[in-house]
Amino acid sequence: MEFSTATLKALVDLARKGEGRTRPNPPVGAFVLDAQGVVVGKGYHRRAGMNHAEVEAIADWKKRNPKVAAHTLLVTLEPCSRPGRVGACTDAIIAAEIPRVVYLCRDPNPKNRDKAKRTLAHHGIECRHLKFAPAEELIRPFAKHVTTGMPYVTVKLAMSLDGRIADSCGDARWVSSEKSRKRTGELRERVDAIMVGGETVRRDNPSLLPHGKANPHLVRVVVSKSGKLPPDAQVFSDGKNETLVYRDAVEAVRDLGRRGMMHVLCEGGLKLATSLAESGLVDEWLTVLCPKVIGTRRIGEAVVFGGGKTEDVFVCSRA
Amino acid sequence: MEFSTATLKALVDLARKGEGRTRPNPPVGAFVLDAQGVVVGKGYHRRAGMNHAEVEAIADWKKRNPKVAAHTLLVTLEPCSRPGRVGACTDAIIAAEIPRVVYLCRDPNPKNRDKAKRTLAHHGIECRHLKFAPAEELIRPFAKHVTTGMPYVTVKLAMSLDGRIADSCGDARWVSSEKSRKRTGELRERVDAIMVGGETVRRDNPSLLPHGKANPHLVRVVVSKSGKLPPDAQVFSDGKNETLVYRDAVEAVRDLGRRGMMHVLCEGGLKLATSLAESGLVDEWLTVLCPKVIGTRRIGEAVVFGGGKTEDVFVCSRA
Repeated sequence: MEFSTATLKALVDLARKGEGRTRPNPPVGAFVLDAQGVVVGKGYHRRAGMNHAEVEAIADWKKRNPKVAAHTLLVTLEPCSRPGRVGACTDAIIAAEIPRVVYLCRDPNPKNRDKAKRTLAHHGIECRHLKFAPAEELIRPFAKHVTTGMPYVTVKLAMSLDGRIADSCGDARWVSSEKSRKRTGELRERVDAIMVGGETVRRDNPSLLPHGKANPHLVRVVVSKSGKLPPDAQVFSDGKNETLVYRDAVEAVRDLGRRGMMHVLCEGGLKLATSLAESGLVDEWLTVLCPKVIGTRRIGEAVVFGGGKTEDVFVCSRA
Repeated sequence: MEFSTATLKALVDLARKGEGRTRPNPPVGAFVLDAQGVVVGKGYHRRAGMNHAEVEAIADWKKRNPKVAAHTLLVTLEPCSRPGRVGACTDAIIAAEIPRVVYLCRDPNPKNRDKAKRTLAHHGIECRHLKFAPAEELIRPFAKHVTTGMPYVTVKLAMSLDGRIADSCGDARWVSSEKSRKRTGELRERVDAIMVGGETVRRDNPSLLPHGKANPHLVRVVVSKSGKLPPDAQVFSDGKNETLVYRDAVEAVRDLGRRGMMHVLCEGGLKLATSLAESGLVDEWLTVLCPKVIGTRRIGEAVVFGGGKTEDVFVCSRA
């Protein structure tokens, strides 16, 4: 059985639903397919401590299509083969008597790699790796964390055509389009922590939360050398997500790694971003280039060149 | 007869050969095709005072394929219908007895628009407009100049991920890749004038010339409020292209328009670019986003984040 790209993409999209909520586990999605390739069960890993995607998909299949025989378990990541907070997925697959497993990326942890294959082969279950880049992309933060103990760091900066940085949520209103802000909001939903510098908190008082669905697992981080932060700032007083404060960017990143954070999004200011870059801690830059000129006036005061026909451009640069 | 996109693109590419050399005329390309659509003659407008593209293409056909009957003259721009420094193209077409003319954009000058059509129809020659966006793109600077008397202004700025502007040729070495510099060089070959601020001349002493084929028609422009410019700077002392000096950016642009310049490329500094933007004189921004972080160090001294996997990104924003 061959899988269409649409099926593989749908599976990765399903896995993405868990992004930002699964740490220190990876986001994973699974489909149970019948002999004709029809999806008869699906599931994803919702958060650490809850069922793995494979178990969810098997349960869904048994609930919704109990009379249809399962032919293949398709999963974004090589199944785990030893029990953790929940039972090993290989056990669940063996118990469900699914004859074939196809996974879209290998376990990034060398200690676990290919274990599932061996365990399943021992029980006569065919187990095969079908490389699919978006599935590897999905667990990039997990892979970094599991191999180095450090989180994957994305720095997002919005800038005008004349290189003026809108390095906070507040100023970004003057630079970014609605579409950009939506895209930034989506990014915030996918990470474990959002980090800003103290100056951003003092000047713009952002909430650092996604605008859509609340994510109680998201941690807010403020890096401030002076530690002089207004206690009535939203991040400290809104009674919503936890906010951690650090004096030093490097210390912050290391500690977040120790706390199991896999993906940290730095939204500015420029000083913090530069400090992370100089320490070699940035994995990915997301630059939003806005078709506007701020010119010599203060940001937020006037935009000289507005109404360009061009949309904001998102540029992703990998270290 | 239908034309393939490849044929139309090849024609626009041919016309582009004249770019930066034809002012105040537009760059134009022409093909003579036989009844099967095979190109049997081609020509482009090399510079003002020389043959128009149509006349070149007809001459090329008569020289190379005198025995093949011409079926269509395909031309990037509506042919001129009144004599200027050279004879009217419509006369040449009538004399060559080509039964059909297809042009890819209309004359942007309302006074001349559709004149060729009427003149040719009068002589039983079918004349039709086939809209092709790249052909319109090609004469954008001509169209602005012929309708407003002002040149089309492109501002090119190279910046790092942290918004540091490399606003001169000198600094750009530290930011741009070889590929970017090549692309910038190509842009320089297509314009009538290259403009920089006085600070750029004092600090970087650029030649402001394309690296490839010399173009004696290219004019160098320096805008300097103080007028304090080193007489031994390359632009004044290399004995190559003409260099004009202005005290004011707005005055400079207006005067270049009066001199027939259709396309001016501003390569910085940032102060000059901002001044042009604040006066509403910028038509197009070309931002080169380089996957590097300059950080707190001086540009040219150190690049903190280098070797990114990403290429420089060119972003074109239209006003």
